[in-house]
Amino acid sequence: MPNSVLLMLNQPSADAPPHLVGAPTFALVDPALPQVSALDLGVTRGDGVFETIGVGDGHPQALEHHLRRFARSAAALDLPTPDSDVWRTAILAAIAELGAVPESSVKTVLTRGVEGDGRPTGWVHASLGADYDSARVDGLRVVMLDRGYRHDVEQTSPWLLAGAKTLSYAINRSVLREAARRSADDVIFVSSDGFVLEGPTSTVVYRSGDRLLTPGTGLGILEGTTQSSIFQWAESLGLGTGFERATPETLRQADAAWLVSSVRLAAPVRELDGMPFPVDHALSAGMNAHLLGLRE
Amino acid sequence: MPNSVLLMLNQPSADAPPHLVGAPTFALVDPALPQVSALDLGVTRGDGVFETIGVGDGHPQALEHHLRRFARSAAALDLPTPDSDVWRTAILAAIAELGAVPESSVKTVLTRGVEGDGRPTGWVHASLGADYDSARVDGLRVVMLDRGYRHDVEQTSPWLLAGAKTLSYAINRSVLREAARRSADDVIFVSSDGFVLEGPTSTVVYRSGDRLLTPGTGLGILEGTTQSSIFQWAESLGLGTGFERATPETLRQADAAWLVSSVRLAAPVRELDGMPFPVDHALSAGMNAHLLGLRE
Repeated sequence: MPNSVLLMLNQPSADAPPHLVGAPTFALVDPALPQVSALDLGVTRGDGVFETIGVGDGHPQALEHHLRRFARSAAALDLPTPDSDVWRTAILAAIAELGAVPESSVKTVLTRGVEGDGRPTGWVHASLGADYDSARVDGLRVVMLDRGYRHDVEQTSPWLLAGAKTLSYAINRSVLREAARRSADDVIFVSSDGFVLEGPTSTVVYRSGDRLLTPGTGLGILEGTTQSSIFQWAESLGLGTGFERATPETLRQADAAWLVSSVRLAAPVRELDGMPFPVDHALSAGMNAHLLGLRE
Repeated sequence: MPNSVLLMLNQPSADAPPHLVGAPTFALVDPALPQVSALDLGVTRGDGVFETIGVGDGHPQALEHHLRRFARSAAALDLPTPDSDVWRTAILAAIAELGAVPESSVKTVLTRGVEGDGRPTGWVHASLGADYDSARVDGLRVVMLDRGYRHDVEQTSPWLLAGAKTLSYAINRSVLREAARRSADDVIFVSSDGFVLEGPTSTVVYRSGDRLLTPGTGLGILEGTTQSSIFQWAESLGLGTGFERATPETLRQADAAWLVSSVRLAAPVRELDGMPFPVDHALSAGMNAHLLGLRE
C-alpha cells in the first residue's frame, strides 16, 4: 500500500486547452519524482489555489463543499474554472489507490501553469494522516498575531485575494515559526483594526454559554467547510450557532474555543497568548466523533 | 543557442544536507521537462525566495547586490543560508550557456524543499529578454492600489514577511490583472495609512526639482537594486537624491516618476490613475543608457 499517491490531470479546466488531446483524464505518477516545471507560475509566483480534504476509511469529508470553495478560489484569481467532475473523479481515484486507512488527506492543486502556455496545471495528492490525538484531545497552545489587513479588505481591495485559498501561503507558514518562538503550536490571526479572523489553516469556533460562534465570512477569511459541519451538528443538539464579529477580548472571555479544519478536525485551545484557557473536553469529543462519523 | 537554460543546484545552502554527496555543483537540465516535486513547499505553500537579475551581453547587473538581497530574503523566511559562491558560479554558468544576447535575465529560486525532507531546493533559470523599448521610452500607465498593510508592518509584524522577495507573489500578479481592468500597465502600491510603497516587481523613483527621491526601506518594501544604481549615477551628475516618505499626493505633484527594476530598467510613468503624467524623456534615456552600460 503506497504512502502517497499523486495524480496529474491532463485537463484540470474545461475552459482551457488540454495538455493532451482526448477525454479529461489523469495519470498516476511517482510522487518521488519531479512532476512540475520549474517555470510553472504555481512555483515561481505562488499563482494557484488548493484545497486539503480530510479522508476517513476512504471517504472524503464535505467533498462538494471543498470543490465549490476550490472553484471560488480559482475565480478570485481569474484562473480557468476547475472541472468539478474531473476533480471529483481524480480525488476518488487517488483515495482508492491509497487504500483503506483510518485517516488520510487529499490535496488538490490548480496552478496557472507555465507562463505564456495558457494551460493550467492540476494534480491531486493523497497521503496518510498524521496522529492528531494530542491536538484533538489535549488541545493547542495558541497565540494571536496581527494579519496586517483591516477586516474589510475583501470588500475594499479584492486584488489582495483575502478569502481565497492560494498557493501563496508563505505567511501562513511564517506565523507558525513565530508561534514556535513563543512556545505555541498554532495561531489566530487578528485584523489590523482588532477583529478575530481565522487560523493560518483553520477556522476559529468558540462557545459562549450555549452558543457556538465563528467570525464568519466577509472578513477576508475562508468559509469554513468543517465549521459548517460542526454548526449543523450543534444545531441538531439544540445549541445555538451564529456568525459574530469578535475582538481578542471576546475570545479571551469565551467558555471554550477551537481551531477547526478538515484534516486535524476540532482542536481545542488550551492556552491563549501564554495564559491557560478552558477546554470543553465533552464538546470537543462530541465534535470530533461527529466529524469522524461524517466520513463513513 | 537555447532560448532558456535551467540549472538545478545539488547544495543550494552550505548549512543544509546536500541532495547528492560531493562538492556543491549543479546540473544542466531540460527546462521543458518537470524538475520540481509536486510536494515541494515552494509550490504547495509558495515557501521560498527568489531574485531576478537583468543581464546584458552576458554581464549580470548588480550581481552582488542581488545575492545579498537573496540571502536577506532567505533569512526573513528562516531558510538555510544560500551559499553565495555556489549561486554566483551557477548564475554565470547559466548565462554562459545561454550565449551572448543583447538582453536576458536570470532568476534564482530557493525553496524549503519537500516537506519533512530538510533539504532546500535551488535552481537558476536564464532566459532571453523581451522587448522593453516601449516601456522604457514611451512609459507606462500606472494605477495606485491599496497594499492592505500599514507602512510600519515590517517593524510591528515581521511574520508578514514584508520586505522579503518570496515565491508567494499571487497578489503581485493579481494587481496586474486589476491594472489591466483599469486600462493600465502597472501598479504602485499604497499602504493602508496612505504612503507610497513600491510596484509589484519594481521600485518607485520620482523627480522633484533637481532631486531624485524614493520611499526607501523600512516600509516593508524591497531594497531596490536598480534604484541604488540610478542614485549613484544621479549623484555623479550633480542631482540630489533622497529617501523620503511620500503620499499619493506627493507623487501626483512630482515632476516625473519611474518604476525601476533589474530587467525592464527605468520605465517612466506616463499616466497615473487615468490622468496624463509628465515624462522626463531626457532623464529616462540617461538612466536607461547608464543601466545598460553597467552590464558591460
